[in-house]
Amino acid sequence: MPSPPWFYSGDLLTVEYRTDPARVADLLPAPLSLAEEDPGAVAMIWADWQSCSSSRKELLDPVQSQYKEAFVVVRCSYKGQTFSRCVFIWVDKDFAIGRGLHQGYPKKLGSMWQTRPHAFPQASPSIAPGGMFGASLAAGDRRLADAVVTLREESPTNGFVNANKMAHHRVFPNIDGPGDAFSELISSGAAEFEGGQAWTGDAELNLYDSPNEELTSLPVQEVIGGYFQQIGVKWNGGTSLERLDG
Amino acid sequence: MPSPPWFYSGDLLTVEYRTDPARVADLLPAPLSLAEEDPGAVAMIWADWQSCSSSRKELLDPVQSQYKEAFVVVRCSYKGQTFSRCVFIWVDKDFAIGRGLHQGYPKKLGSMWQTRPHAFPQASPSIAPGGMFGASLAAGDRRLADAVVTLREESPTNGFVNANKMAHHRVFPNIDGPGDAFSELISSGAAEFEGGQAWTGDAELNLYDSPNEELTSLPVQEVIGGYFQQIGVKWNGGTSLERLDG
Amino acid sequence: MPSPPWFYSGDLLTVEYRTDPARVADLLPAPLSLAEEDPGAVAMIWADWQSCSSSRKELLDPVQSQYKEAFVVVRCSYKGQTFSRCVFIWVDKDFAIGRGLHQGYPKKLGSMWQTRPHAFPQASPSIAPGGMFGASLAAGDRRLADAVVTLREESPTNGFVNANKMAHHRVFPNIDGPGDAFSELISSGAAEFEGGQAWTGDAELNLYDSPNEELTSLPVQEVIGGYFQQIGVKWNGGTSLERLDG
Amino acid sequence: MPSPPWFYSGDLLTVEYRTDPARVADLLPAPLSLAEEDPGAVAMIWADWQSCSSSRKELLDPVQSQYKEAFVVVRCSYKGQTFSRCVFIWVDKDFAIGRGLHQGYPKKLGSMWQTRPHAFPQASPSIAPGGMFGASLAAGDRRLADAVVTLREESPTNGFVNANKMAHHRVFPNIDGPGDAFSELISSGAAEFEGGQAWTGDAELNLYDSPNEELTSLPVQEVIGGYFQQIGVKWNGGTSLERLDG
Repeated sequence: MPSPPWFYSGDLLTVEYRTDPARVADLLPAPLSLAEEDPGAVAMIWADWQSCSSSRKELLDPVQSQYKEAFVVVRCSYKGQTFSRCVFIWVDKDFAIGRGLHQGYPKKLGSMWQTRPHAFPQASPSIAPGGMFGASLAAGDRRLADAVVTLREESPTNGFVNANKMAHHRVFPNIDGPGDAFSELISSGAAEFEGGQAWTGDAELNLYDSPNEELTSLPVQEVIGGYFQQIGVKWNGGTSLERLDG
Repeated sequence: MPSPPWFYSGDLLTVEYRTDPARVADLLPAPLSLAEEDPGAVAMIWADWQSCSSSRKELLDPVQSQYKEAFVVVRCSYKGQTFSRCVFIWVDKDFAIGRGLHQGYPKKLGSMWQTRPHAFPQASPSIAPGGMFGASLAAGDRRLADAVVTLREESPTNGFVNANKMAHHRVFPNIDGPGDAFSELISSGAAEFEGGQAWTGDAELNLYDSPNEELTSLPVQEVIGGYFQQIGVKWNGGTSLERLDG
Repeated sequence: MPSPPWFYSGDLLTVEYRTDPARVADLLPAPLSLAEEDPGAVAMIWADWQSCSSSRKELLDPVQSQYKEAFVVVRCSYKGQTFSRCVFIWVDKDFAIGRGLHQGYPKKLGSMWQTRPHAFPQASPSIAPGGMFGASLAAGDRRLADAVVTLREESPTNGFVNANKMAHHRVFPNIDGPGDAFSELISSGAAEFEGGQAWTGDAELNLYDSPNEELTSLPVQEVIGGYFQQIGVKWNGGTSLERLDG
Repeated sequence: MPSPPWFYSGDLLTVEYRTDPARVADLLPAPLSLAEEDPGAVAMIWADWQSCSSSRKELLDPVQSQYKEAFVVVRCSYKGQTFSRCVFIWVDKDFAIGRGLHQGYPKKLGSMWQTRPHAFPQASPSIAPGGMFGASLAAGDRRLADAVVTLREESPTNGFVNANKMAHHRVFPNIDGPGDAFSELISSGAAEFEGGQAWTGDAELNLYDSPNEELTSLPVQEVIGGYFQQIGVKWNGGTSLERLDG
């Protein structure tokens, strides 16, 4: 796998909602604690990506470049600073799992689909008031979530839950028993970011139980809103905040 | 499967080339014969589709709506009229196979990928001079074809090989031995068509041998050109040209 | 696709149950009617196949040979004779769809899994009392069914619902509007059949609603039993019972 | 993911061959060196697994239990002891990637197929003289390898290249630049092992170039032999040999 920097062009479909903050706290290992403001806020995000390394050669063999993902982000506090944190994430390509290991994303495989805007409306919504975008997530041959966002108006933001730097753990369990051989808290964010006009609107989000997944441990109490934005990103490493092993 | 009409929004990446006309003739069953002009012309086309029925409900559960395909088109003559004809086609969803049976496309499953344009260039080509688009086709865990098209300039057409009405056979073999219980020659085309600005440019196309496929029976002798166009289409049935059984 | 005969070696996991006979009748087009005895009996069958044509070459490139399927069988009456009939079927390879078209099976794509017996029990049930076999079916990224069969004893049969010759329709809709260009009722069965010792036992079967599927139109009212058998089959065509078009 | 122990029942199809020892040495990071005897020996192994944790619950939802893999093993020397080492491995499920991270296997996604023996020979080889087993490996929509093994006779072993304890690196790159935040050499082997009668025979192995893979960096100079064996395994952790970072 080529080393960073890594480059991404893609579309984000986001539903933000509130859950019981105690359920968020259950997912925050030490030394993280709940964010001070709106601690029960959650973002469920679908992303439809094209990506590449510095050589850009993956773009000409797009089986190496395109992938989809769905992920759940909460916020947390570390030494008085608010971070975003991905608590669940599913992707559909192994290169995305590999990059995610580097970045501390706990990636699993899933099947994700998200409606695309297109220049012609015969079988596509428009990025305009009334434009309807659907999305689904499945893993283990079970549907885990689906959503519909109906655009209403332009928005100054693409939501707030995924708007901070990420704080992630990177962990290797011991090979010879319980405990961790390596555990590190790291932070990272986009080295460069360009975003198109964000849109907001009404959102429905359904989460479905699965015996193998924890997604419904963050049930929807109140939908905050839905968002759509097209973005371009460069990621180029992060910072080690703290070693937690030994 | 919902009945026609069916609606499509998508991007076409096309490479047109010439092969030995005798190889095209080998793929034209009676009563079809070679086209009079440029009879060895072939188009290999990748398409990245969103599609739906009249209800448009598939667009909100996009696993039912999005699919990719790669197909090979030649031209032929029937009663003095020139038709296009799809001789090989691979898709990645079963609803596309089902529609294809109705339309006389000999669809098989494959894995297709094609570079997408995007609003942000971090990991995307632009629809502009120098924009490079790649594509690949695999089936049976073997790569069958890949291509790169480098856009040069706007084009008055998206090529000519796939520009006629389609002439396709629809066949059921006998259940109790050789021969056909049903065989019909039909024609169809788009009931409505909208196309964006087409682009043309330089193209490379590689076809790879497979013991299970006939794609290399139409080898590339001379590349004519590459094309990129975004389109919207409505398909709503066709015409029976001739019954060929019994 | 090579012509018949086609050969199969595989394992069948079956759950037989009763539903309201009126729901079965809804799925029987003319000239078929309900079977006289036990007309609400249904078999849901998972099959894990290796298959080949007469050349047997597919066996050496097993991506061309192995496939899984799940299907639902009812019985029906035609001119006083009882037939089996597959009303729903999902497979995971296109060559299985192609053969199914020939045979009148209404095949769609799905994802099927079924526990395998193995010579070593570390991660496998035994074909013996207490052996537990699970199975699941998904399509459109939704789970449609799952089952567990716990073997109890050897059985003289592998169930009765799928034990007759099949009566299937083969249909092409008109290309230019409603109605059928071709419709034929055919029957077929195994040209050769070898079966190992069948086992029966307790069974659980769950069917799940999906907006795109009709599987729950045959709800489980009473489980009859579960079955497991390993078989070898040769299929070599069938008989046209009746032309129904024109 | 449940913690170890993990249990496996499955079939191994192995082709052993010799390559230039210098090419093996290129793949052995410090502190490992070439094995003293037959240092260019390589095993390419296909495995068709059913697996579970101690609860055995995965066996009743077999999408969580069954997976396939193909991997390449060489031998190496560490402090005077000979170890086996997996240098390339592809799997088709994410739980197998997750376990592999724990065990130090550099797992990527691929598509693997391998002929299965079955109780009935209609579409299956027998585990007997003349039985022919095929296998293939693809990744990135390119075929990387395929093989055919023709059984000749019972064998006292299933080969020798994969017969030692494994020596693997477990590595996390630094989040903020070159170098490793964590690097550990570990060893592990089966905690329990049961094997059926091994068979040996003639083997063909083809490795295909891919711009994204290094498999052909170990070209086949001389085939040693082919093997088939059914096994049951328990894996329950290993031993840290050496910390290599900082």
